[in-house]
Amino acid sequence: MAENKKLVEAITSMDEDFAQWYTDVVKKAELCDYSSVKGCMIIKPAGYAIWEQIQRQLDDAFKKTGVENVYMPMFIPESLLQKEKDHVEGFAPEVAWVTHGGLEPLQERMCVRPTSETLFCDFYANEIQSYRDLPKLYNQWCSVVRWEKTTRPFLRSREFLWQEGHTAHATADEAEERTILMLNVYADFLKDVLAIPVVKGQKTDKEKFAGAEATYTVEALMHDGKALQSGTSHNFGDGFAKAFGIQYTDKDNTLKYVHQTSWGMTTRLIGAVIMVHGDNSGLKLPPKVAPVQIMIVPIQQKKEGVLDKAYELRDRLIEKGFRVKVDDSDKSPGWKFSECEMRGVPFRIEIGPKDIENGKCIFVRRDTREKIDVALSDVETKAAELLDVIQRDMYEAARAHLESHTYTAANWEEFCDTINNKPGFVKAMWCGNQECEDKIKDELSATSRCMPFEQEQISDKCVCCGKAAKKMIYWGRAY
Amino acid sequence: MAENKKLVEAITSMDEDFAQWYTDVVKKAELCDYSSVKGCMIIKPAGYAIWEQIQRQLDDAFKKTGVENVYMPMFIPESLLQKEKDHVEGFAPEVAWVTHGGLEPLQERMCVRPTSETLFCDFYANEIQSYRDLPKLYNQWCSVVRWEKTTRPFLRSREFLWQEGHTAHATADEAEERTILMLNVYADFLKDVLAIPVVKGQKTDKEKFAGAEATYTVEALMHDGKALQSGTSHNFGDGFAKAFGIQYTDKDNTLKYVHQTSWGMTTRLIGAVIMVHGDNSGLKLPPKVAPVQIMIVPIQQKKEGVLDKAYELRDRLIEKGFRVKVDDSDKSPGWKFSECEMRGVPFRIEIGPKDIENGKCIFVRRDTREKIDVALSDVETKAAELLDVIQRDMYEAARAHLESHTYTAANWEEFCDTINNKPGFVKAMWCGNQECEDKIKDELSATSRCMPFEQEQISDKCVCCGKAAKKMIYWGRAY
Repeated sequence: MAENKKLVEAITSMDEDFAQWYTDVVKKAELCDYSSVKGCMIIKPAGYAIWEQIQRQLDDAFKKTGVENVYMPMFIPESLLQKEKDHVEGFAPEVAWVTHGGLEPLQERMCVRPTSETLFCDFYANEIQSYRDLPKLYNQWCSVVRWEKTTRPFLRSREFLWQEGHTAHATADEAEERTILMLNVYADFLKDVLAIPVVKGQKTDKEKFAGAEATYTVEALMHDGKALQSGTSHNFGDGFAKAFGIQYTDKDNTLKYVHQTSWGMTTRLIGAVIMVHGDNSGLKLPPKVAPVQIMIVPIQQKKEGVLDKAYELRDRLIEKGFRVKVDDSDKSPGWKFSECEMRGVPFRIEIGPKDIENGKCIFVRRDTREKIDVALSDVETKAAELLDVIQRDMYEAARAHLESHTYTAANWEEFCDTINNKPGFVKAMWCGNQECEDKIKDELSATSRCMPFEQEQISDKCVCCGKAAKKMIYWGRAY
Repeated sequence: MAENKKLVEAITSMDEDFAQWYTDVVKKAELCDYSSVKGCMIIKPAGYAIWEQIQRQLDDAFKKTGVENVYMPMFIPESLLQKEKDHVEGFAPEVAWVTHGGLEPLQERMCVRPTSETLFCDFYANEIQSYRDLPKLYNQWCSVVRWEKTTRPFLRSREFLWQEGHTAHATADEAEERTILMLNVYADFLKDVLAIPVVKGQKTDKEKFAGAEATYTVEALMHDGKALQSGTSHNFGDGFAKAFGIQYTDKDNTLKYVHQTSWGMTTRLIGAVIMVHGDNSGLKLPPKVAPVQIMIVPIQQKKEGVLDKAYELRDRLIEKGFRVKVDDSDKSPGWKFSECEMRGVPFRIEIGPKDIENGKCIFVRRDTREKIDVALSDVETKAAELLDVIQRDMYEAARAHLESHTYTAANWEEFCDTINNKPGFVKAMWCGNQECEDKIKDELSATSRCMPFEQEQISDKCVCCGKAAKKMIYWGRAY
């Protein structure tokens, strides 16, 4: 048990130093690593395998709504980036510039895409002529670059992986409908696959995307009570269409501008999974996103028949569609248990000579550590049941945490006290003026996370200035 | 039939102008498009869907051999690129340089990866300490940039998508074994999925990868008799390991250098599929890689019951795992047929009121245009059979073309005559001197494609200089 303890001791306790705990888990679970390229990370196999699960399931959900995948160039000529005024102001300060191709200077410098609205608009301006060409529902999976000053694995890095959907529609209504549809796809994905509950709502003007008419967001709450923006969906109206001249001939033979949306999710979701579900033993992966759902750990594996039985169980479970491995390395069982826990495998199966004699094995849950005796003949059925239960219980635990860490504040004193002393979301009223948002950010380091779709009337006065309130806001400190 | 004809007439005949035919197919089948970013292409939904099929099946084949996916940064600091002498010489002239991040100049400029050997080596130097850490079998899917002067869709563009595998091994033998294993994975994939036969062999020193000890290749023959390098696998020996200091402590407690490989395939494979299988009606996709395997075209679709029956057939076929669509647009059936052909759908199902009355439908093969009456009750079984037959027949046709366009030449006169007048591969002997390769390239625009694993003794003299022959080479003009 000594070596077992060593692995666990290497992690800082989350209550002591949450930031260090996070870094330790990322490192010990071998999710990612720093690289020689400042601010860029290396996503290692255990981390990338989670991203592959996310990608495949999210992509399936997109395709069900009619979305098609494409691939656009990674470079944006400077003149193209500048076409939409708000957009260039938002992104120009944080892009990487390519100035030379081969041995020669470029005639016009290009940035590495920080996001691809401008490229899609340029493409749509050529592609779209008639109402018959609409809607366009395109998405791409790629990496983007934003020259951040301070970076953290998965949460903020100079290059990150994401998907960006870009759609063009005949009418404003259709664009709004698509914006909300994709926000709901995100919320459902977070809930059903990542077991993460979210608050859905609209960003204030201060917090919305550069060039958007409206930005919607799904906000999740991490274990330490900080918020994480986990996906956004933007309605551009016809702003980009006017800047790029994207027009179509409608049925009535008049020329009209299209209405556009974009929406994206990133590798930051992996950070969310770590910080919502993890504990002092490491990562906890919801079964639906776990690259390895079940780890079989043979006990006394050198005894005749043990490994054979482990492989047999594995094959039976793989046959049923589960993602299963046998840890047949020469490490001790205790070490293997710790490793399963560190890496967040939803449950492990322990099986040794005595178990085989008794025709059973032991399921050990990662989330509750509960041990369950299971007859060898029932393994497939019980595994399916347990994975469902773990998925549900993990969501339920996260939901309870979100609920118990959501507070209300009716006045400035309550508000300051809650923000400063109770990490979590604070629901409070807002007058609609950016000055109050600025003050709250300056004095309390808290931001408006969103104007939730489900509005409540906490009071009738702005929590900051005391003037008439227009909206209830979820406030919080955020990553 | 007039509109039908129009669509087809828009393609240049392949016998008249193969290059223009290729461009026309790429455009009309909506596979890709030029972008405002010079030398970079936009991969459109129909093209990207083929890439997704390639990716998924190739990725599965990699994983079966123990490969894991990772993601490395897209930037390479200049000092890192320069660590291996041959490598930097090969790539530095054709990379794009990032010189500014945000508003500030970088302390050290970075290139956008043209390939990632240097990044993986830098990573491995930190990751690998002991023989227990070996082998490392990593791969990544990403885009790379090479500043090409002349570009062609899928075949050569400044940015392209690919996978790059990078492995590290304890011994030279293991590295060589992995190099050949991955070459065989490529050859099998080309044969079994893309229905493309290849010649397997080793590149000459002149043609090998910058920094490699040995480069192996799979060479395919396009319809016009030109060769296309379709995948390469490199053995680096310990050259990179020495340049980057990648050492491990072996079981005997001595410090040793690792031996490395890399191997890659790109979106150029889509170009290969077009140019091996296409005809004057457009694309022909092998069933295993076709995003839509079966298109159902309803005839007189406004008549009651026709569309319902079409959807019913679709659902039955999807249920069996086929990729199927119904073309229920308001275009004429003739137009739909042409479109199916242009897009290369392996076969279409025609179904109209009379067919339904007779309890049948018609399968029309894309490759042979054969029409087959099929009882509605047999659709699933017959579809499965037909897709298998088409896959096999397409491979067989490509194999026959390769065979009938592979020539031998015993002396310089024969060699010149064949290269100039008979497009295809020419098997001829070589003395091993680069001077002869250079002369052949200068005078005949032909290159050594590979030293095939299956050697033959065409004569005992070099086809160029007449000195003693060392190797038989496949020569050809290439893309």
